[in-house]
Amino acid sequence: MQKITGFKLYNNRNGSNPKRVRMFLAEKGLEVDFEPVSFAKLEHRSPEFRAKNPMATLPMIELDDGTIITESQAICRYIEDLYPEPNLFGETPLERAQIEMWNRRIEFDVANYITMIMKHTGEFFAPVITQVPEYAEACRTDLMKKYDWLNEELGTRDYIAGDRFTVVDITAYGRIGMRDSANADWRKDHTNLQAWWDRISARPSANV
Amino acid sequence: MQKITGFKLYNNRNGSNPKRVRMFLAEKGLEVDFEPVSFAKLEHRSPEFRAKNPMATLPMIELDDGTIITESQAICRYIEDLYPEPNLFGETPLERAQIEMWNRRIEFDVANYITMIMKHTGEFFAPVITQVPEYAEACRTDLMKKYDWLNEELGTRDYIAGDRFTVVDITAYGRIGMRDSANADWRKDHTNLQAWWDRISARPSANV
Repeated sequence: MQKITGFKLYNNRNGSNPKRVRMFLAEKGLEVDFEPVSFAKLEHRSPEFRAKNPMATLPMIELDDGTIITESQAICRYIEDLYPEPNLFGETPLERAQIEMWNRRIEFDVANYITMIMKHTGEFFAPVITQVPEYAEACRTDLMKKYDWLNEELGTRDYIAGDRFTVVDITAYGRIGMRDSANADWRKDHTNLQAWWDRISARPSANV
Repeated sequence: MQKITGFKLYNNRNGSNPKRVRMFLAEKGLEVDFEPVSFAKLEHRSPEFRAKNPMATLPMIELDDGTIITESQAICRYIEDLYPEPNLFGETPLERAQIEMWNRRIEFDVANYITMIMKHTGEFFAPVITQVPEYAEACRTDLMKKYDWLNEELGTRDYIAGDRFTVVDITAYGRIGMRDSANADWRKDHTNLQAWWDRISARPSANV
């Protein structure tokens, strides 16, 4: 493991998005200083934290000069730029485009349903959004069709964006990993999805 | 204008996402062959189109060898890789990260509300999602808080991601451009937002 200097990572062990950055670092063989932020104590909604990140989200990195970057995907891109190997965002213009395409499909068309179920049913989110529990139910219905589609896609290859592990598998593993908390698991006959899940779970980076 | 060869763009004049790619091309001084796809005739939901793109979305590009790339942001990244000037995704690792961060904030935290209002109230989307009109109303409420925040941010600079025009302004202009159709305009006192809108509207690329 190589220790990164130059920034620290504001982190929470239970959040799916901080996990994406930890997995990404582990795949690169990198370590970084963590600054723990407690969701239970609502530290991410404190005035001190909001002064750095008005969106009150994790993960966040703070460079030594005080510059802030939020959004897990932006942080991962920053790390990829500084530490290019192993490549996780694509080697060629075409592969980079395909990885970006798949990352967005996962985020907008699959994971977002899980996020919305949690946000529209969880007490934790009541202060920050206008909750519509009926919408959470609609998300459960529509998510199942997305699982059908992704399960079919994963019948043709081992990883979501192609034949090798990429940042898209990290995105999906982190976000779809919240499906139990959202009570939104796939069906038993989604065997390709389950095989993909087991494949990623077997990587050392999945346990960071 | 330089003519691109090697791929064609499946396009629709009314869609906000195809517009993002057209604006991006115009800012680069590039032209490409269009393949018109009619939403009115539901051509994007035809079996022929779905064979290329099961998500039934536009924009989409098809390379000469038949390779398909969907998702406007993925297509724009592909174009940036092939035609780097003028730079719209960032010159340095830090600027690239900040542009990605702002692009995601705009998409997830602002534009997505407008999209959801349209999807949950429009007849056009009834066949593809479980509509919850009450959720559209909740989006209107929450969107106004996001406008408050973005209006404040735009008090400090002329463009969303910093002091120069970037892909983030294209993302926002395309997506927030749908606010009239969604009956989700900002308030008259959101003067910084309006000034930003007028600034982008004055660019030749805004009319493509």
